[in-house]
Amino acid sequence: MNDDTYQREEGDVFLPLFGADGLIPAVVLESKTGHPLMFAHMNATALNLSVETGFAHFWSRSRQSLWKKGETSGETLKIDEILTDCDQDVLVLKVTAQGLGTACHTGRRSCFYRKLKIDPADDRPRLLFIDNTPLFDPAEVYGKSAK
Amino acid sequence: MNDDTYQREEGDVFLPLFGADGLIPAVVLESKTGHPLMFAHMNATALNLSVETGFAHFWSRSRQSLWKKGETSGETLKIDEILTDCDQDVLVLKVTAQGLGTACHTGRRSCFYRKLKIDPADDRPRLLFIDNTPLFDPAEVYGKSAK
Repeated sequence: MNDDTYQREEGDVFLPLFGADGLIPAVVLESKTGHPLMFAHMNATALNLSVETGFAHFWSRSRQSLWKKGETSGETLKIDEILTDCDQDVLVLKVTAQGLGTACHTGRRSCFYRKLKIDPADDRPRLLFIDNTPLFDPAEVYGKSAK
Repeated sequence: MNDDTYQREEGDVFLPLFGADGLIPAVVLESKTGHPLMFAHMNATALNLSVETGFAHFWSRSRQSLWKKGETSGETLKIDEILTDCDQDVLVLKVTAQGLGTACHTGRRSCFYRKLKIDPADDRPRLLFIDNTPLFDPAEVYGKSAK
């Protein structure tokens, strides 16, 4: 193991490793339950803003723009803790959802509202809804055409 | 919202969306506690093998090869549940770690063994160890030079 790898894995210096696209993936978990809420990417500015303000900011790859989660919907995410992994190329945000507590643009509490139903009798897995209760109407919050 | 997007977000058909590199990110959480264990990528073969065998398989971007987690160390991950998100471009695996229960190549239980210490007095965040107890010696398990 070279010195750089050792520092990255065993050191106490935060050296976030952004990809060739300038982004680092961020997994968002609910602090209270550990439940996964969403997954997004940060560039350096989004990470700095998240650290400075205590609210989750991301880089939207589809819109190619900086994005404060909840800036339109009011459904912001207060950051309780940020973890990083061994090689510092992923972040985990433990958060408390504000507002109605919906992290997903579909109006659901979490983006992870379906699980695979794996049955050897089926050709391929189907999806089972584990949460199908939107807490708001996306068309009302984002407009008819917006995601 | 067009029909494709509607099907992807609101349907029960599993339509995993692989990136241009043929990979989909997979977040691994411990079933029992919700604690994040690791983060990796799957190609279609790794996903199929994971579904078929019930043990986590990934695509190693550094080694450019298919990889059954734990094939060298014995520290495999039994899959209890697979979730996907609204646009089906991320997977969450809820797992029970086998063997010693170490998901990380450093010998720790989780790759997420450090958290950011955010102090306005510091120029930049430092890292605090939340787990610094390797359960095996990586050099013994993987050899001196291997990661």
